[in-house]
Amino acid sequence: MKYLVGKASGETAVYAVMGSDAVDLTALDAAVGTDLMALVADPALAESVAGKVAGAPTIPVADITPALPVKAPGSIICLGLNYTDHIKEGGYDIPDYPALFMRGKNSIMAAGAPLVRPTCSEKLDYEAELMLIIGKGGRHISQDDALDHVFGYTVFNDGSVRDYQRKTHQWTPGKNFDQTGAIGPYVVTPEDLPAGASGLKIESRVGDEILQSSNTGNMIWSVAHAIAIISEYTTLEPGDMIAMGTPPGVGHAKKPNPRWLVPGEVVDIEIEQIGICSSPIVDEKDLAAGGAQ
Amino acid sequence: MKYLVGKASGETAVYAVMGSDAVDLTALDAAVGTDLMALVADPALAESVAGKVAGAPTIPVADITPALPVKAPGSIICLGLNYTDHIKEGGYDIPDYPALFMRGKNSIMAAGAPLVRPTCSEKLDYEAELMLIIGKGGRHISQDDALDHVFGYTVFNDGSVRDYQRKTHQWTPGKNFDQTGAIGPYVVTPEDLPAGASGLKIESRVGDEILQSSNTGNMIWSVAHAIAIISEYTTLEPGDMIAMGTPPGVGHAKKPNPRWLVPGEVVDIEIEQIGICSSPIVDEKDLAAGGAQ
Repeated sequence: MKYLVGKASGETAVYAVMGSDAVDLTALDAAVGTDLMALVADPALAESVAGKVAGAPTIPVADITPALPVKAPGSIICLGLNYTDHIKEGGYDIPDYPALFMRGKNSIMAAGAPLVRPTCSEKLDYEAELMLIIGKGGRHISQDDALDHVFGYTVFNDGSVRDYQRKTHQWTPGKNFDQTGAIGPYVVTPEDLPAGASGLKIESRVGDEILQSSNTGNMIWSVAHAIAIISEYTTLEPGDMIAMGTPPGVGHAKKPNPRWLVPGEVVDIEIEQIGICSSPIVDEKDLAAGGAQ
Repeated sequence: MKYLVGKASGETAVYAVMGSDAVDLTALDAAVGTDLMALVADPALAESVAGKVAGAPTIPVADITPALPVKAPGSIICLGLNYTDHIKEGGYDIPDYPALFMRGKNSIMAAGAPLVRPTCSEKLDYEAELMLIIGKGGRHISQDDALDHVFGYTVFNDGSVRDYQRKTHQWTPGKNFDQTGAIGPYVVTPEDLPAGASGLKIESRVGDEILQSSNTGNMIWSVAHAIAIISEYTTLEPGDMIAMGTPPGVGHAKKPNPRWLVPGEVVDIEIEQIGICSSPIVDEKDLAAGGAQ
């Protein structure tokens, strides 16, 4: 199943996407609600509403403005260095454990919403990432069982303000500027993808300019391994999100000059079989003036 | 006002503490709810219920089992290195910006609840910290205005699993083991404390053994400065918590041998005029067996 949370004419709803058409699942069963949490928490509901999709009325996907797939994820946990070549371009040694950091909910927004360049920095960077949404929670999840805990996969742009990321050894500020992490728009359930969403082409682009191009098969830590590592220290909850790190080609490592995002550009992150997460870059001062959002 | 969220005989309630007695504010006005969020969000409610305390029935504070002051804080943001001598004992250079990291909600628990030593490590450490709870939210809060955004101050034990904290340069895993961060039990509002809760003695102890002893006046970044720095990158929300870093004397830096917490011990963190946060150390395997919690 390919889900899309968003708004057409009425309220925000959960849609099932089939090609360029979408069925409003919330209209089929109000229990589905206005983000994916009800489906995440209740696999029987997901199954029952899926059974009602055939023959239901459709609208064009293009008419739907995406919203966050999960409005208020309990935790957003991110792997920092998970592609060998990206680690080298950042000047780090290859580690034997993933660098893990967290993003707060004010740092994320839906695909299509402005990705905000803050007033205090011009060093705004993109990071194409696979993101997973936890279905069944748990602690001490083994690598063998881990994929049973995935509700679905989506696309993430781990937008980063590089000078604030490196003010100290802890990356938190540069990874938590308001409205810098774009999520979505589609969430694809595991049965429609290769195991662990491995082997998928992943790219970031501005227009025709290809900025990153790699494959999720190049990750050092697989989805299953990441879930096992993270759940060793914390109980994962339904709706928690894990971002799987970015491949080489980020702007701050471009030679001879860094390639920062500037207002007016639109950055696209695409993962094969999942979709494209597009974000227009907007200057914070224009956002505050009501010019966007 | 000194608040205590907890449970006596009935449901969890918010209490006003006066010496060794407490008044059930939730019984005086049901709108107060079962944690501090209603009072945080509505200063008029706080004022109105405070007006009903005089002459209300009291119970002994000792009869109340503490609960988390805010059940589900949106963000828990922590300063890592904020006392010069603690930075030196950790082998770090004195920075010009605070090291900032985040804790997820599964890592925290109320004062009095077990502080869990995980099965995978014996390197469990205490950190005495001042913690503040944001009242009025905001972005780009100036240092001059910052103290107007504080709802109150409490005590935090930033329990850390040191080998997991240093698996990579990012501290997240070692700072996020389930049930390792104790908060509370009392929340004291700013008018009852020195400005920014500065100049207060802060200590950690196991029984008569004094492990850390310093003063919140020794912090490099004051509460006001920390709020200004953090709100430069993120919108602070009512109920968000900021932990202000720990003074020297943590267990991993003790000479000639580290001083790890072991099951059976009780670690007390005390801040003058706020209170004592006590946590019994319990082994994860005993917790899982239902022996505690």
